[in-house]
Amino acid sequence: RKQTSLDMYDYFTGPRDIQKHSKWPLILQMHGSITPKLIVPLLIAGGWASAVTVITMKVYSLRVDSVLLTILGFVVGLSLSFRSTTAYERYAEGRRYWGMLIMASQTLGRTFWIHAEDPKGQDPRETLLQKISAMNLIVAFSVSLKHALRFEPYSAYPDLQYLIGHLNTFAKEATLADPNVTSIKRKNIFKSTGEYLGVSFATSNPRKLLKKTDRPLGNLPLEILSHLAILIDRMSANDQLPVPMQQTVAYNHLIMMNDVMVGCERVLNTPLPIAYTIAISQITFIYVMLLPFQLVGPLEWIAIPATIAAGYIIFGLLFIGQEIENPFGHDVNDLPLEIYCDQIAHDLDIIAAYDKREPDSFLL
Amino acid sequence: RKQTSLDMYDYFTGPRDIQKHSKWPLILQMHGSITPKLIVPLLIAGGWASAVTVITMKVYSLRVDSVLLTILGFVVGLSLSFRSTTAYERYAEGRRYWGMLIMASQTLGRTFWIHAEDPKGQDPRETLLQKISAMNLIVAFSVSLKHALRFEPYSAYPDLQYLIGHLNTFAKEATLADPNVTSIKRKNIFKSTGEYLGVSFATSNPRKLLKKTDRPLGNLPLEILSHLAILIDRMSANDQLPVPMQQTVAYNHLIMMNDVMVGCERVLNTPLPIAYTIAISQITFIYVMLLPFQLVGPLEWIAIPATIAAGYIIFGLLFIGQEIENPFGHDVNDLPLEIYCDQIAHDLDIIAAYDKREPDSFLL
Amino acid sequence: RKQTSLDMYDYFTGPRDIQKHSKWPLILQMHGSITPKLIVPLLIAGGWASAVTVITMKVYSLRVDSVLLTILGFVVGLSLSFRSTTAYERYAEGRRYWGMLIMASQTLGRTFWIHAEDPKGQDPRETLLQKISAMNLIVAFSVSLKHALRFEPYSAYPDLQYLIGHLNTFAKEATLADPNVTSIKRKNIFKSTGEYLGVSFATSNPRKLLKKTDRPLGNLPLEILSHLAILIDRMSANDQLPVPMQQTVAYNHLIMMNDVMVGCERVLNTPLPIAYTIAISQITFIYVMLLPFQLVGPLEWIAIPATIAAGYIIFGLLFIGQEIENPFGHDVNDLPLEIYCDQIAHDLDIIAAYDKREPDSFLL
Amino acid sequence: RKQTSLDMYDYFTGPRDIQKHSKWPLILQMHGSITPKLIVPLLIAGGWASAVTVITMKVYSLRVDSVLLTILGFVVGLSLSFRSTTAYERYAEGRRYWGMLIMASQTLGRTFWIHAEDPKGQDPRETLLQKISAMNLIVAFSVSLKHALRFEPYSAYPDLQYLIGHLNTFAKEATLADPNVTSIKRKNIFKSTGEYLGVSFATSNPRKLLKKTDRPLGNLPLEILSHLAILIDRMSANDQLPVPMQQTVAYNHLIMMNDVMVGCERVLNTPLPIAYTIAISQITFIYVMLLPFQLVGPLEWIAIPATIAAGYIIFGLLFIGQEIENPFGHDVNDLPLEIYCDQIAHDLDIIAAYDKREPDSFLL
Amino acid sequence: RKQTSLDMYDYFTGPRDIQKHSKWPLILQMHGSITPKLIVPLLIAGGWASAVTVITMKVYSLRVDSVLLTILGFVVGLSLSFRSTTAYERYAEGRRYWGMLIMASQTLGRTFWIHAEDPKGQDPRETLLQKISAMNLIVAFSVSLKHALRFEPYSAYPDLQYLIGHLNTFAKEATLADPNVTSIKRKNIFKSTGEYLGVSFATSNPRKLLKKTDRPLGNLPLEILSHLAILIDRMSANDQLPVPMQQTVAYNHLIMMNDVMVGCERVLNTPLPIAYTIAISQITFIYVMLLPFQLVGPLEWIAIPATIAAGYIIFGLLFIGQEIENPFGHDVNDLPLEIYCDQIAHDLDIIAAYDKREPDSFLL
Repeated sequence: RKQTSLDMYDYFTGPRDIQKHSKWPLILQMHGSITPKLIVPLLIAGGWASAVTVITMKVYSLRVDSVLLTILGFVVGLSLSFRSTTAYERYAEGRRYWGMLIMASQTLGRTFWIHAEDPKGQDPRETLLQKISAMNLIVAFSVSLKHALRFEPYSAYPDLQYLIGHLNTFAKEATLADPNVTSIKRKNIFKSTGEYLGVSFATSNPRKLLKKTDRPLGNLPLEILSHLAILIDRMSANDQLPVPMQQTVAYNHLIMMNDVMVGCERVLNTPLPIAYTIAISQITFIYVMLLPFQLVGPLEWIAIPATIAAGYIIFGLLFIGQEIENPFGHDVNDLPLEIYCDQIAHDLDIIAAYDKREPDSFLL
Repeated sequence: RKQTSLDMYDYFTGPRDIQKHSKWPLILQMHGSITPKLIVPLLIAGGWASAVTVITMKVYSLRVDSVLLTILGFVVGLSLSFRSTTAYERYAEGRRYWGMLIMASQTLGRTFWIHAEDPKGQDPRETLLQKISAMNLIVAFSVSLKHALRFEPYSAYPDLQYLIGHLNTFAKEATLADPNVTSIKRKNIFKSTGEYLGVSFATSNPRKLLKKTDRPLGNLPLEILSHLAILIDRMSANDQLPVPMQQTVAYNHLIMMNDVMVGCERVLNTPLPIAYTIAISQITFIYVMLLPFQLVGPLEWIAIPATIAAGYIIFGLLFIGQEIENPFGHDVNDLPLEIYCDQIAHDLDIIAAYDKREPDSFLL
Repeated sequence: RKQTSLDMYDYFTGPRDIQKHSKWPLILQMHGSITPKLIVPLLIAGGWASAVTVITMKVYSLRVDSVLLTILGFVVGLSLSFRSTTAYERYAEGRRYWGMLIMASQTLGRTFWIHAEDPKGQDPRETLLQKISAMNLIVAFSVSLKHALRFEPYSAYPDLQYLIGHLNTFAKEATLADPNVTSIKRKNIFKSTGEYLGVSFATSNPRKLLKKTDRPLGNLPLEILSHLAILIDRMSANDQLPVPMQQTVAYNHLIMMNDVMVGCERVLNTPLPIAYTIAISQITFIYVMLLPFQLVGPLEWIAIPATIAAGYIIFGLLFIGQEIENPFGHDVNDLPLEIYCDQIAHDLDIIAAYDKREPDSFLL
Repeated sequence: RKQTSLDMYDYFTGPRDIQKHSKWPLILQMHGSITPKLIVPLLIAGGWASAVTVITMKVYSLRVDSVLLTILGFVVGLSLSFRSTTAYERYAEGRRYWGMLIMASQTLGRTFWIHAEDPKGQDPRETLLQKISAMNLIVAFSVSLKHALRFEPYSAYPDLQYLIGHLNTFAKEATLADPNVTSIKRKNIFKSTGEYLGVSFATSNPRKLLKKTDRPLGNLPLEILSHLAILIDRMSANDQLPVPMQQTVAYNHLIMMNDVMVGCERVLNTPLPIAYTIAISQITFIYVMLLPFQLVGPLEWIAIPATIAAGYIIFGLLFIGQEIENPFGHDVNDLPLEIYCDQIAHDLDIIAAYDKREPDSFLL
Repeated sequence: RKQTSLDMYDYFTGPRDIQKHSKWPLILQMHGSITPKLIVPLLIAGGWASAVTVITMKVYSLRVDSVLLTILGFVVGLSLSFRSTTAYERYAEGRRYWGMLIMASQTLGRTFWIHAEDPKGQDPRETLLQKISAMNLIVAFSVSLKHALRFEPYSAYPDLQYLIGHLNTFAKEATLADPNVTSIKRKNIFKSTGEYLGVSFATSNPRKLLKKTDRPLGNLPLEILSHLAILIDRMSANDQLPVPMQQTVAYNHLIMMNDVMVGCERVLNTPLPIAYTIAISQITFIYVMLLPFQLVGPLEWIAIPATIAAGYIIFGLLFIGQEIENPFGHDVNDLPLEIYCDQIAHDLDIIAAYDKREPDSFLL
């Protein structure tokens, strides 16, 4: 599971793996930096600054006193700060929900594997099989949540199919009806370059898959919760959880999973109100576009690199905010949901590896 | 339920649907932008700036040194920041409560449909009917809360009537006494244009309906909670929830619904203290009105567009704050409560679609 | 209960009713604005600015370079921001506690009226009477908390006497010993004008009543909680709450009321540390007093209105912070505790109006 | 308990009593102000500014352009803001924990006195005595926590000895071994003046007492919790708390007390990371020391008072932050822990004053 | 356990002990200051500033108007503020989790030692031994969590081996397979000096140990939780916790430990998104590098110390943020996890020192 090689594809997409360590000083690191998204805007700003400067120096003075810059600088700064804070808040909240999910999965796993007593009179091999099935259901929840947060509503994804293929879900029916739907189409080079550069015209609607179909897609994580609910009901009815508090733990963490699901959907579907997003984009754009008029007076030719430097800083902060606002996607700075899903599976393996002995054996 | 066409009416009112995707760059998007509300203030600011500039250039110098601008700029910036932060906090809090409501509805739905055992000795068809009724009550709570948060106290709204028309509530009696009360009167064109442009004189009191009547209007969501309370009491008494923790879950999420109701009312009825709202409006207004005197010296004729640009940025941030402070209304940037209600209904359908089998069938 | 007329008295005191709607643009609204409190400071600042300007223009130059203004402007701005944020936080926290109180009252009311079974073998009329008494105790808690938060420690207030007059409390004994203590003395005109203008010398100690007496005043809300505790104990002992979770709900919300009481007292008794309050007042005062020396150079006579305008903005933000820091008082911007108490009474009436039927009647 | 006289000793030490009311305007109040701590730094800054100014005006120009001031002013402002926010956060958190402690004490007191039934077959006078002992244990916890937070690890303090003198604790043994340890040594006048002026060389290590001894000092609040735990175990075993929820309440609030203890220790032992504290001190110091060079150009002799005024504002905000960072000490602006302990004792008296009757007597 | 001597090694590494008290004024303190990490960057900035200044004064003017400084200063300031706030938040969150861990350990210790009844019919000496073993398991959890947070995945550390050496864990097997793995290799002098100076090329990947091995390393704290879970299950099954609430307390605090583990891992593995870290480093670097061009005009030779002073302040704030972002390491400003582990062990000793008597002995 530890993948440390850094190939080209990884470099530009997918959440960055926290385990990678770079020996370069931070100011020189490229992987994860927002620089690629800035190429187009900086080309525009640079061209504009050059035009203004050349015209001023050669043709006709477009110089304007810089009083406005000072006045608006403060509002621009606070807008960027607002943009960063609210985007980062979403990122942190998304992460906190996945932390809760890891916790709930571990606790539920411990409930199924350690707290729960084996049903009486059942073949031990069957019991073992059922326990493993139950553990898989827990993993399936996190994997299906990952897909749901990426607007992938089907069931036949390689990391999901073997976990829930046997369950009777809306997603399965929709997948069976159109088996090609989960095969990812190769994007043409223009489109993917455009997306990589952040050109809005090249970006498809991320909810495309949800809209294309007329079949009911259901809500896969919610349906898995229903299965887990039945499982816990049965365990309680069968007296497999003899201490009442064990039942409480089971139900509480089922609900915590539900909470995680609803919370992640909230983070996903509630960006900063669009009026703010538009206004802040406009403010920073206007500010940078007005820069060369006011810089060309005091700085002359240096106004061109100065505008680009200022644009780099200002657009940089703006674009990072827009990227991490939805922390569940495939951007380099997004949360590594795959790694979290792997960790849940790994931790459940550790819990299940535990040979349930009497405490007398380890209480010396 | 997926409505993606974008007609004119949608464009200017109603919360914007998050599922819509625009290919325009953010700085050029209009839908959801605050621009329309800025038309009137910017006309005023532009006229004022033109007057000051023309008088200064042609008649008598009104130039003033710009020292004051720098001094006050910082306070204006922090005031706008305070305005944005507190308004956005309300927006986010409102959203969080609706997230809790979705969660509580799903959990309560699961309790009614999956955890609960069927009452013994009852006709299965009657049981099914009662279960569907119970699920409808959950949906009714969210729909009635939506109407309550929009100051619509009656019961005969198309999305509510079929869910709670048979319940004996104050709202029903008030509706029966005056059946025309839920028909929305067509506003005349002047009034609706005025409202659209944010002219305060054209804005009616949103609580108009609550004040016009002398009948007791009750508190519809609270009354629905009472019905749900009785239902849960009966289920507990009938041993339909054999595991104590199932009862706990039911009561807890009933209380969570109550919490959501009170919390949303708090967000609705507790805007920023009016003294701040007034002071911040005055500060920004004074600041923009003083701009031309100080800009006309260094910028001359350019003072006019400069004042308008500064006004666009400053008033923009101010007005967005005032719009999203109450996130439950019909503004373009408000929370899409209809969509949340639809989602609750949809999720309950998914839970109810589940054929309650023994876990042995899916634990391979 | 809906009081919409706006007489003179209301205009200047008492928390403002959220239900009132003004058609004036925000910048022209007076009700709730901090302007009256600014009259005295602005007169001082204006006189000072006039003196400095007249002396400079006619007698001897007091001009000072404005470099200091820029340096300190930032610290002043951040201090005002700190003042606003911490004051508003108290306001919001106070509101949140009263939201919790509304919630706890509704839930406890529902427990008493709907969840609780009638005691066996008791005359139904007596049962009804006792239930109404129990509901009144819930209302009494919020009313007594309101009085406690306003330093009114007695029991004979018109809105409280009929609810708890029959209980044996310290407050009752103290009231009986000095029956005139709850009659509000008419303040003389100088004092009340002074208070209205915010002159510190005219402001009495709000805790005056607590200090004047030597009798034990007890802690009325805490004593009401003891009564409620006994009530719930009895209901549990009598098997009136047959589902354990119903008992849990009752005890939990009793404790939530206790939490609200302690939390509100905390908000009331823990203003911003006095060192900050003093320092921020001094900073803003020094800043405004230094303004005319630095403005008279560039602005000449305009320095006088400029100082007043800057003082309006700076003192305005400072004074709003000081006003809402204690959100439980009688200031125009304080929380409308009367309305919350009325709402609790009203909501309990709605719950009690509910005729407790079998769910079969509304589950179609 | 109400102590309103204001003698000299009170004026300069000990947390300020919130009940005191001053009629002076805030800008003239001294009690609680940070001014005394500023005397030494302002003398240094003033001397330095005078030297720079005199040399510049009489000997050799040390004038420097003020461009740096503007650049660094912003960072200084944000550092002070960070210092204030993080210090105030600790203050508020400390207060919140003491609010929780008051709440837990009241609830536990109510559990012992009202919810708990008397043990069967015990002499009522003995029962009463035991109940009073139990109430005293609750008070003892808060008093011992107060001493622990002030690094006073012994048991023979006047307000503690009568409550826990009979318990068998480490603190008691350590006290018995060295009975003089709790007598406070009179500090000499130089040291106490130095401390009052905030001279770091005169400040002793607050943890001195903890380090001087070699005996085990234990953890007095934790030991009192163990006693309370046994008490609650016995009450549960004896069926004195017949409703399960009453036991839950008791255990929960015992744990809440533990939470308060650990939380307060956290606030006490986790100041802002020392690197920040040092860096912010250095930044403000450098900034103020650089002021006269840059002010002497534009302001000439006025640079001296200007530096002092700026120093007053900047150092003032810095020092308040350092004072309230540990809110549990004896500084004027610290939390009045004595008053909270008194309030707990007082509230428990009120609960215990309650004559436990049948609810029929007050349910009319 | 109290270690107050301050040797050279301590001075430069390891979290600083809060108990140490320095009599130096804050601005002169070195221990804990970020100064060492600033040597390299300030040398670079100083050299650069010297070069620019010398060239400008002697060869060719590189003067640039300082308009850009003012424009970008604000964005730099807000970026540093964002960097500090988010880093400090992690620090505070890490500390809060360790506070929770202390609390959970104390409560679980009290449950095992005080609440739990001795198993019937067991040899008291064996019981005592088992109880001590159980207490050791609690300590082991915190110690193993400390090692896990420092990427030390084995079991043979001196402070851990004696506590869990007898347990059958993945870590133990991995340690047995390669016994030398826990011996710390002496770093060569260049590498350690480089690390001390914060040179990125000299910093090893902190996750090195995790990557080097191919054996399964398990998740030691999670495995200890499994052991504790079995222990609590047995105590519940044996009726050693006769009050249901005691079982609840035990399970809840087991889960709280799980929460702490997951939460600390979250803090550790979720730094600020790398795009922000890179962007903020670049912004501050660009800003400082541009300083000399703009300062050399107004300040001439003074531009060199001025650049260094500004660099000290700006880089200082930046580097502190980067240091405390991961608060669990060995930096001077990190959280003293060793001390917390010691405190847990110490507090459990105090609880276990308690001779469990009947309450009659201390209820006078």
